[in-house]
Amino acid sequence: MKIGILGYGTVGSGFIDVIDNNRDKRDIEICKILVSDKYKHKGKKYFDKITENIEDIFEENIDVLVEVMGGLNPTLDYIKRAINNNIHVVTANKDLLAEYGDELVKLANEKGVYIKFEASVGGGIPVLKPLIESLEGNNIESISAILNGTTNFILSKMYDENLPYNIALKQAQELGFAEANPEADVMGYDAARKLSILSTLAYNNRVYWKDLYLEGITSIDERDMEYAKKLDCKIKLVGQSSLKEDKVSAFVRPVLVENNSILAKVDNEFNAVIVNGDSVGEISFVGKGAGKLATGSAVYSDVIDIIDNRINCIDSFMKNKVEINKILENKCSALLRFSSFKKNEIIDIIKSCIVEYDVLNDKDELAIMVYANSEYEINNSLCLIKDRGYCKNINKLVKIS
Amino acid sequence: MKIGILGYGTVGSGFIDVIDNNRDKRDIEICKILVSDKYKHKGKKYFDKITENIEDIFEENIDVLVEVMGGLNPTLDYIKRAINNNIHVVTANKDLLAEYGDELVKLANEKGVYIKFEASVGGGIPVLKPLIESLEGNNIESISAILNGTTNFILSKMYDENLPYNIALKQAQELGFAEANPEADVMGYDAARKLSILSTLAYNNRVYWKDLYLEGITSIDERDMEYAKKLDCKIKLVGQSSLKEDKVSAFVRPVLVENNSILAKVDNEFNAVIVNGDSVGEISFVGKGAGKLATGSAVYSDVIDIIDNRINCIDSFMKNKVEINKILENKCSALLRFSSFKKNEIIDIIKSCIVEYDVLNDKDELAIMVYANSEYEINNSLCLIKDRGYCKNINKLVKIS
Repeated sequence: MKIGILGYGTVGSGFIDVIDNNRDKRDIEICKILVSDKYKHKGKKYFDKITENIEDIFEENIDVLVEVMGGLNPTLDYIKRAINNNIHVVTANKDLLAEYGDELVKLANEKGVYIKFEASVGGGIPVLKPLIESLEGNNIESISAILNGTTNFILSKMYDENLPYNIALKQAQELGFAEANPEADVMGYDAARKLSILSTLAYNNRVYWKDLYLEGITSIDERDMEYAKKLDCKIKLVGQSSLKEDKVSAFVRPVLVENNSILAKVDNEFNAVIVNGDSVGEISFVGKGAGKLATGSAVYSDVIDIIDNRINCIDSFMKNKVEINKILENKCSALLRFSSFKKNEIIDIIKSCIVEYDVLNDKDELAIMVYANSEYEINNSLCLIKDRGYCKNINKLVKIS
Repeated sequence: MKIGILGYGTVGSGFIDVIDNNRDKRDIEICKILVSDKYKHKGKKYFDKITENIEDIFEENIDVLVEVMGGLNPTLDYIKRAINNNIHVVTANKDLLAEYGDELVKLANEKGVYIKFEASVGGGIPVLKPLIESLEGNNIESISAILNGTTNFILSKMYDENLPYNIALKQAQELGFAEANPEADVMGYDAARKLSILSTLAYNNRVYWKDLYLEGITSIDERDMEYAKKLDCKIKLVGQSSLKEDKVSAFVRPVLVENNSILAKVDNEFNAVIVNGDSVGEISFVGKGAGKLATGSAVYSDVIDIIDNRINCIDSFMKNKVEINKILENKCSALLRFSSFKKNEIIDIIKSCIVEYDVLNDKDELAIMVYANSEYEINNSLCLIKDRGYCKNINKLVKIS
């Protein structure tokens, strides 16, 4: 089996290490490795295979192109070129799949080659393959997941060490868990892309990431963490989606989760995917969502599947994009925080819209836990409060069960 | 695809339901269903396919034999006959695999047919396939698992409702979670068989279930649960194995697990398998370990793999049985309980053998938490205490981290 690799960063190095660790069992020949600046990689193994010229990759007679360089361009062109040349593709690139998954899967199906992307969601955790293959006999009803290690690390730090967001972010950056520009992580884009891939596969409907309800973690502060502790909860950036009567609901947002739940046990750089199937019930997959060798292991497993000819057929990416419901339509509860508030007026409105509530704090700010029949009820009350100018700022943090 | 089914009990019915729920996607023809007493199944669907005669199964031109009847005999003969007739086999029978896995896998390999058994471990949780296929690039270093739903249900009841063992067992029996003869569950045999299958696949060594260290839950009492709560722990029947320097260690025994761990979150009929791989780190799989549709879903996924020709090659069952270390050789702690005790004498011995200890109770019984360099240290002290007659009974409950 001859492979070409695009990219020699963290994941590429991990993948190559996994190949070498398994040389006694599997003979995978690394033909060429494409990088943008060859001399940045001096001293690395397989240096003689490194090239800066994409033509060198395609001149080799490779069976599989492994794409671990990231980004949308020129990655998309390279992958399309590979498929058009009847070369199988393994990619870890969730950005690319979330954006162009339909085009790529369609092209691969037309050309009769395979495109596999286990590492794109949940890093090292086997989740796409179990979802597609092992749970095929199920209608998947819902997914709840922690899909971004960077934000989970930041939120864990904030919770465990009472750190403000900025300091926790800085620590994550220093430890290599967050990038210099953390936008894709902290704004929830990365998690939304992964949730869209999972949901597309789970519901056999094309779920486009930009259509989800999306909220990042940048406005979470130390007071939120204090209230969470009081409520015996943690705060997690959760991606959740469901299929009910042919309607897909999906969001990525910071939420309160009970300490007693599996999601609350998933801290730091760990990820979790909890899938609900109509036959199997609730299945949880937990593990490292990133990391050199962990992600390398997932990429490797895709290559092995191609070698062993173990293939599943995916056509959900080729479906039309579905409309996505962005609001919690069932019973839900939320922590509401108001600054510069008029207590009695706010509580009167809440009483009129929402059946149950608990005041957690009415000193320096007003913090109320509300228990509503749907998120609409909560939003209606907040609209009224805002319109009438009963407070300056409002923060809302939903609790999921 | 034509299949014959052996058995029409809980799992058989669940499997058939899953087939019918997926008729729009997959056309699986149920040719014959073997039962021991046809008229017990009157009113069930596919009644016209039911037979009491195994010859009727083999007279059909089936592609796959699905064995969900359980037991060792005549099941073993039927499966061997199928393989010899070039029929693929899917089985949920952990007893059979733990005992005759070597013979069956060898025969299947010789005949070029597939034997698949996802449902034999962890019920509906996809675990064998992810372990073999998705984690192929890893050396598996250890496994920790809750593999028996019956005992987990009993221990959860005892912990949550302060029930004695016998009452919790009776409730489990009334709810259908435990059999009239609960021996295989409560003595740990069932968990040991499952752990041996997992460990055989994980370490590429034949790990035989009777060679594990094995201890059931029958001696766990309400006081154990009280101490566990004091220690911020739960008590779980855990199967644990590891491979270190070519040596396999393995046990199934009740242990203390910290409330803060994933295993402690796995209650009632749920199962969990936590795998440690050298590339991927710690991966946890959690879900229902039994149940009609959940197990049916796992059996179904094996049949689909055969239809789609997605096969993995297993030869670890054919290896020679390895010797198994049965004792914890690393740092470990344990709860020791002594009845009719001589306190000072016992503590003197513990002081001389073990560095650290905490006395939890010295009133009606002596309960001590000890922190040792290995289980040998603990056992040595207990031998001395016993030999010198410093107490009547000793209970030891190890804590794992």
